[in-house]
Amino acid sequence: MSLEKVQQNHKSKITRYRTLGANMPADLTSDYKKLIEKNKNLIILGSAEAIISWDMETKMPPKAVQLRSEQLALLSEVHHKMSISPATGKLLETIQKNAGYNNLGKVEKRNVHLVKKNYDEQTKLPTKLVKAIAKQTAVSINTWKKAKAAKDYNMFKPELQKLVDLNTQAAEIFMKVKQTKTPYDALLDIYEPKMTTEATEKVFNELQQGLKTLLAKIANSKRPIKKIPQKVPVDNQQEIANMLMQTLGYETPPSPNAAGRLDETEHPFTTGYYDDVRITTHYHPENFVSSIFSVLHETGHALYEQGLPQEWKYTPIGSACSMGVHESQSRLYENVIGRSEEFWTPLFSKMKNIAPQCLANLKIDEFIRFINSVERSKIRIESDEVTYCLHIIIRFQIEKDLFAGKIKVTELPAIWNQKYLDLLGVTIENDSEGVMQDTHWASGLYGYFPTYALGNIYSGQIIAAMQKEMPNWRAELAGGSLESVRKWLRDNIYCYGNLYDPVEFIKKATGTELTVKPYLNYLQEKFGKLYGF
Amino acid sequence: MSLEKVQQNHKSKITRYRTLGANMPADLTSDYKKLIEKNKNLIILGSAEAIISWDMETKMPPKAVQLRSEQLALLSEVHHKMSISPATGKLLETIQKNAGYNNLGKVEKRNVHLVKKNYDEQTKLPTKLVKAIAKQTAVSINTWKKAKAAKDYNMFKPELQKLVDLNTQAAEIFMKVKQTKTPYDALLDIYEPKMTTEATEKVFNELQQGLKTLLAKIANSKRPIKKIPQKVPVDNQQEIANMLMQTLGYETPPSPNAAGRLDETEHPFTTGYYDDVRITTHYHPENFVSSIFSVLHETGHALYEQGLPQEWKYTPIGSACSMGVHESQSRLYENVIGRSEEFWTPLFSKMKNIAPQCLANLKIDEFIRFINSVERSKIRIESDEVTYCLHIIIRFQIEKDLFAGKIKVTELPAIWNQKYLDLLGVTIENDSEGVMQDTHWASGLYGYFPTYALGNIYSGQIIAAMQKEMPNWRAELAGGSLESVRKWLRDNIYCYGNLYDPVEFIKKATGTELTVKPYLNYLQEKFGKLYGF
Repeated sequence: MSLEKVQQNHKSKITRYRTLGANMPADLTSDYKKLIEKNKNLIILGSAEAIISWDMETKMPPKAVQLRSEQLALLSEVHHKMSISPATGKLLETIQKNAGYNNLGKVEKRNVHLVKKNYDEQTKLPTKLVKAIAKQTAVSINTWKKAKAAKDYNMFKPELQKLVDLNTQAAEIFMKVKQTKTPYDALLDIYEPKMTTEATEKVFNELQQGLKTLLAKIANSKRPIKKIPQKVPVDNQQEIANMLMQTLGYETPPSPNAAGRLDETEHPFTTGYYDDVRITTHYHPENFVSSIFSVLHETGHALYEQGLPQEWKYTPIGSACSMGVHESQSRLYENVIGRSEEFWTPLFSKMKNIAPQCLANLKIDEFIRFINSVERSKIRIESDEVTYCLHIIIRFQIEKDLFAGKIKVTELPAIWNQKYLDLLGVTIENDSEGVMQDTHWASGLYGYFPTYALGNIYSGQIIAAMQKEMPNWRAELAGGSLESVRKWLRDNIYCYGNLYDPVEFIKKATGTELTVKPYLNYLQEKFGKLYGF
Repeated sequence: MSLEKVQQNHKSKITRYRTLGANMPADLTSDYKKLIEKNKNLIILGSAEAIISWDMETKMPPKAVQLRSEQLALLSEVHHKMSISPATGKLLETIQKNAGYNNLGKVEKRNVHLVKKNYDEQTKLPTKLVKAIAKQTAVSINTWKKAKAAKDYNMFKPELQKLVDLNTQAAEIFMKVKQTKTPYDALLDIYEPKMTTEATEKVFNELQQGLKTLLAKIANSKRPIKKIPQKVPVDNQQEIANMLMQTLGYETPPSPNAAGRLDETEHPFTTGYYDDVRITTHYHPENFVSSIFSVLHETGHALYEQGLPQEWKYTPIGSACSMGVHESQSRLYENVIGRSEEFWTPLFSKMKNIAPQCLANLKIDEFIRFINSVERSKIRIESDEVTYCLHIIIRFQIEKDLFAGKIKVTELPAIWNQKYLDLLGVTIENDSEGVMQDTHWASGLYGYFPTYALGNIYSGQIIAAMQKEMPNWRAELAGGSLESVRKWLRDNIYCYGNLYDPVEFIKKATGTELTVKPYLNYLQEKFGKLYGF
């Protein structure tokens, strides 16, 4: 499909959504507007909290820690009170009882649904439980840090147990509210609405099988990966980051059109809303590649947020679809595009010119092979594109059994270590490089891990759909232009905002049901070429 | 007085304040605690708003302007609603009716007074008027910018008139609430509580007389001021700023004890609370002296905020006394200390070493004379230590007559120009360098200007008191130590927080009633030496 056609197609979509819901009865229109207005305050307050949190990670003087925790606690209390406002409850009731409700347009219905979902989640959880979880989360994180440093799971175990118990209580309440089959489904639903354990298990099993086959082929490959020079001074790395952001069309100050910015933090992240979406990276002086892929990953997240339909700003559907879809966008820029030869073809010599003292002798094919080297590792965040999802699958399998009561907190290390041996063939020496490596479980984020792998699966479907409509996209990339890709993503992904839950979104956006095949095909093709099979 | 004695003296002061108010009846104690707890939320919310505003000036991507205005408007609405909470009104009433109220300690009584003052101010002003002022302020500022660029007072006049009218309405309401003699007194009271037009006029008349005499002597002086090299690259200026902040004991990241930070903005300012007080400066590549005195000025403000008693944090008295007292602290570091030869004696060669390519041939006495050169100018913010207060006196005289109905908005330019000719001997060519030079009147800040000159007057009294207790302070400064000065300010100025209104504060802190003499003596001595009279 030509670019113009894609754009036209997109325009008609948007117009259709806009006109649906005309001819609403006056009282319904008025109540709906009130609801949206009330919810706008929640969105704006949330975006202000994001700035305060961003400041804490990037600019805050160290002495301000206690004051900042007071500020965040107060804002979160104000936010919670706004969320559970009885006026919102009444509006929701009146709107849903209105005779005209069923004739509401898609946009309005979805907006009402999203407000109601948040209202139910916030009101159904007893305040006592919310506070207990907040308190225990702080304790668990703190204990996790100490236990990880001491390589002592027994120290962490009782605090993890308490947090799991409290979140089980919450999950059981959510299960009723959301009418899910299991408590773990209710947790999954927080990050990936309407996604089920069953559906996840199905695609993850296929994925695991496919990755196993691929890994075996790579292991048999005779092509070794050459080490490359990795030391690049931080100010050169900053220049490389600027080049990448510019290439992707993510503008930062002093550009007068900037709706983003880049700063340095310990762990990279993206935060913000529409016209103010900021990313961070971490510069390792001994490993310049690390920041490159952090910048590409976070820029992928940021472009999604910035690219949501402007006409939906301040309304519930003017938000990302899910964590998984968000991750599809970051992985797409980080891996599919960012680790491709086509992407680097026009950029490689520019990068070398930024740090010629370090990179003068580096060759593009060495670089591409290096950034795509596959190695079975113990640590998720150090793993490559092929093994990454195996790390996630292990966590998913453990989480679902834990919340199904099939395994106990005390058994986690043994099960973890066995699965790492079975799936990745590595031997875990201690629990700090094993079950305690991630912050997620200590932070009460259960049901979150699967979205990382789902994001990869979605990215495969998305790339396949893009490829079908624009078979030339890789050639355009090699020619130095990301314009078509950016336009396509805007017109086929970002344009949906939060209009659908992810399962339905992926169908609308790619034309196919959730399937792991395109992602496996993409990996097979890419690594087959690199490793010669 | 020895340092130890000063410190002992301070300790006994604080202890006295602390123990007052013991043996309160249980119901009064409980209500008082509730009131303080409610007010704590207001303070914390205010500090969060400050971060959001700071971000807007320093880090925000340009596209976020509209989103930011939504965030600030919402937070300000939440703040206002918290301020006028009926629960606060009831608590105030119950506390003041309690039989034990009169036996409350000084600290508790002052805290109740400050909460009540804010509550009254916030509740007595009709919401309609508050909104009208907010709206008109935005319009007036916008029109002022355009009119100033076009040098066209007639363009600005109608919008200024509306803003003056609205603020007159507010002043008349405040006059009743605060029981002041005139509406202008009620405006003054916002920035300098309990200060009156009468008292201000008295000291300003004396000040004007003294400055006139001094200016005449300087005009007769035969000692010319030599121009010095002014170009210094911005990164060198940043290093100079770091040296100055370090010297003053204002810590910024990466120091692990930092409770402040320095960034660059168009107009320098200070913002924050206790452990997070940030300053900004502006680097002019062609005028390195400018940033030096911005940094010293803002650091003076910041050290005051950071130095407020830690035990009063989150309570009403844990705040600055007034705008005037705040200004006394910034002027003290900027002018009294920062433009003294003693201050630069240990720092001058360090500064030269930072930018030897620009400053190698500069001599300390040339530098000191240059940074203290006196010239009658048209623009307040470019004026020197001697003429500065004349600019303020002109504004005060006009403001008080304007709000007394003695002069009209339409007459402002003519009156302004006449006063500049009379007091400063300069001819105003157009209203952009005349009556429209400052943002204050366009921003609805009436009664604010006098605090700048009051700050200078206070600084004279404070220095005289310090001199009496530590006759050696200038020698210590020349020896490279600011420790005694910092300690003295902490123990004699910062320690009072907001325990007294400024008139009483200055008596407590310096032992003398408000008087302009020490400030004039200080100027006479300093400029007499520099200009040889």
